[in-house]
Amino acid sequence: MKTRAALAIEAGKPLEVTEVNLDGPRQGEVLVEIMATGICHTDEFTRSGADPEGIFPAILGHEGAGIVREVGPGVTSLKPGDHVIPLYTPECRECEYCLHPKTNLCQSIRTTQGQGLMPDGTSRFTTLDGDPIFHYMGTSTFSNFTIMPEIAAAKIREDAPFDKVCYIGCGVTTGIGAVINTAKVEIGSRAIVFGLGGIGLNVIQGLRLAGADQIVGVDLNPSKVEMATRFGMTDFVNPAEVEGDLVPYLVNLTKGGADYTFDATGNVQVMRDALESAHKGWGESIIIGVAPAGAEISTRPFQLVTGRSWRGTAFGGARGRTDVPKIVDWYMDGKIEIDPMITHKLSLDEINRGFDLMHEGKSIRAVVEY
Amino acid sequence: MKTRAALAIEAGKPLEVTEVNLDGPRQGEVLVEIMATGICHTDEFTRSGADPEGIFPAILGHEGAGIVREVGPGVTSLKPGDHVIPLYTPECRECEYCLHPKTNLCQSIRTTQGQGLMPDGTSRFTTLDGDPIFHYMGTSTFSNFTIMPEIAAAKIREDAPFDKVCYIGCGVTTGIGAVINTAKVEIGSRAIVFGLGGIGLNVIQGLRLAGADQIVGVDLNPSKVEMATRFGMTDFVNPAEVEGDLVPYLVNLTKGGADYTFDATGNVQVMRDALESAHKGWGESIIIGVAPAGAEISTRPFQLVTGRSWRGTAFGGARGRTDVPKIVDWYMDGKIEIDPMITHKLSLDEINRGFDLMHEGKSIRAVVEY
Ligand SMILES: NC(=O)c1ccc[n+]([C@@H]2O[C@H](COP(=O)([O-])OP(=O)(O)OC[C@H]3O[C@@H](n4cnc5c(N)ncnc54)[C@H](O)[C@@H]3O)[C@@H](O)[C@H]2O)c1
Ligand SMILES: NC(=O)c1ccc[n+]([C@@H]2O[C@H](COP(=O)([O-])OP(=O)(O)OC[C@H]3O[C@@H](n4cnc5c(N)ncnc54)[C@H](O)[C@@H]3O)[C@@H](O)[C@H]2O)c1
Repeated sequence: MKTRAALAIEAGKPLEVTEVNLDGPRQGEVLVEIMATGICHTDEFTRSGADPEGIFPAILGHEGAGIVREVGPGVTSLKPGDHVIPLYTPECRECEYCLHPKTNLCQSIRTTQGQGLMPDGTSRFTTLDGDPIFHYMGTSTFSNFTIMPEIAAAKIREDAPFDKVCYIGCGVTTGIGAVINTAKVEIGSRAIVFGLGGIGLNVIQGLRLAGADQIVGVDLNPSKVEMATRFGMTDFVNPAEVEGDLVPYLVNLTKGGADYTFDATGNVQVMRDALESAHKGWGESIIIGVAPAGAEISTRPFQLVTGRSWRGTAFGGARGRTDVPKIVDWYMDGKIEIDPMITHKLSLDEINRGFDLMHEGKSIRAVVEY
Repeated sequence: MKTRAALAIEAGKPLEVTEVNLDGPRQGEVLVEIMATGICHTDEFTRSGADPEGIFPAILGHEGAGIVREVGPGVTSLKPGDHVIPLYTPECRECEYCLHPKTNLCQSIRTTQGQGLMPDGTSRFTTLDGDPIFHYMGTSTFSNFTIMPEIAAAKIREDAPFDKVCYIGCGVTTGIGAVINTAKVEIGSRAIVFGLGGIGLNVIQGLRLAGADQIVGVDLNPSKVEMATRFGMTDFVNPAEVEGDLVPYLVNLTKGGADYTFDATGNVQVMRDALESAHKGWGESIIIGVAPAGAEISTRPFQLVTGRSWRGTAFGGARGRTDVPKIVDWYMDGKIEIDPMITHKLSLDEINRGFDLMHEGKSIRAVVEY
């Protein structure tokens, strides 16, 4: 079949909206009609050429929601008409990782996914001239129709609005999951969130959901205060306005350091500050941000020997097929909010505008509706 | 009263064995006759002048065992004749830290202890000329008689031999506790221990006690193999003999990385290797070693985002008054071994020889018997 898609032809170039060929689903695969997709930093990381593992030409996009239209041979858990959220972190429930209680990093299709291919080592996308196009993160949600493995699609309820719950495909789950799955924040905790963007705001609402007593937000951009406060932030700190060092200021504000700190900036110096503003004895610091290629984090080992721990999270520690449907329920039940974070709606033709908005710091999330 | 002690007069000088004055125990303090004391790297760190917080003149030593001879006013949990192990990490059971489930770092007397003083801000030691001498780590076990707060002495059974269980005052508890309290290693785990000295060997026997399946020891000194094997090491790796990089070698040896890795060297490059040879998804790396002043650890944050965690441990995460008597029981019951690690016995007059043996890499533990 043919489908409209935004094609990343080469690193650093704007996306090109065009028709492409899409083969039908093979063994264990499903064809999904994407109804809406968010535009996330990770897409931009690859589009811009900053991602050393980026492959072109490719169809980017990994934060979508849609409807199964066709299933390949052997697919048992999905059928045409099912509403799904694509999962860039699949859940096969069979590999060593899925069977380990401490991780969500299913490895069953990792190698081919990293090569921009489906599990059988081929691509379903080609240009109208017949040249190959690579998949991206196993999801390629910047295409109206796309193929993914059955294990990379979470079935969700049918009354959930696509233009909101697509955000659960990455940002919402990453932020809330970092709190709930990775940090396992207890009621009454004090926390600091560095970076109040699309991820940080979701960390904040995760902390509110977990019953944190103090939720400090740290951002250089004071325009983030209103939204963060709405999502549960109790204290705001602009590092540019702190006299002296930031870490002792934050330690003092949290009465000895925070029980949990989160980096949602991707800046390695911020990651260090996040660790060092965690409480001596028990503070845990969680890295969510993705750093520039080659950048390193550092600290004195004494920070760890005196009881702090340094951890990270990918996709919020969520097991997608199991956890994503629950987060959709939380949204539908009003336990978490998404609507105010969807600041911009675009058509596929306007997709490059979404990247511009991100760079201008004007959007929390821009969503493309097909 | 007067007592014989090894006095550290100034940084970098050998200890001087001499008589000193000792005041009796004040409110909440006990007088302990030290029967035996180990010589640990931390004593040498201070003696040598490498410790930026070292204070002189002082009586070092923090790995002892002895008998309570007198108690000060208000002491309720100890009486003359009780056998005790001094605790450089006390356990008051009342401060914010003692009441927190995740830490053993009791802070109730931290400030004065760091200043070489008893909790009332004074010292009990003076020279025969009446000049003040500082306490060290609240224990000063290089004195035949010494004073410590009641909360810094663990009462132990009376049939335990002083010249063996003194080692539980630091090395044994640090190593075994890192496994049991900090890492909470599960049966069947794979582990890597970097550094097979007085701490690393105890990590190894802690891993055996915890039921680890694979216990890899890493050391540059092949003379450590025999003892480590006796304590439970299943594989030995000498980094000097590995062709290519050490980390991929260890990842391969442990079938994807170890569930738990431990640094017992104090070398920051080793700490990085320990983190990076932990298993993707769930591997935890525990820093035990104390790094040189100013040294920093680094890694790419991706190591953490993909599921490894970096932690540290002090005194093996043990709450001394609660846990140390249990470890003494384990020794008396044959669950753990200590005797083969006590490689040298010295008199107080020979104490400087103990430091020499440490530098020569010839001793695991040299113990001074009074
Ligand atoms: N680990 C994962 O699974 C995962 C998933 C998605 C995104 N991410 C990463 O999370 C990070 C955040 O993504 P986002 O979409 O929220 O980005 P964003 O640009 O929307 O937000 C980042 C925020 O950080 C603030 N900031 C930047 N530098 C700062 C500094 N030095 N001090 C304080 N605040 C600072 C910015 O003002 C902005 O508000 C990115 O690195 C992204 O790649 C990680
Ligand atoms: N965190 C705590 O509570 C605590 C308590 C006591 C001691 N420590 C620290 O633990 C560390 C170990 O103490 P120890 O008494 O076992 O010392 P040790 O000297 O007896 O043992 C260190 C071992 O590490 C080996 N080693 C050195 N460099 C190495 C390298 N690059 N690669 C591989 N092996 C290497 C040495 O050959 C030696 O066998 C020290 O840093 C000490 O200060 C920490």
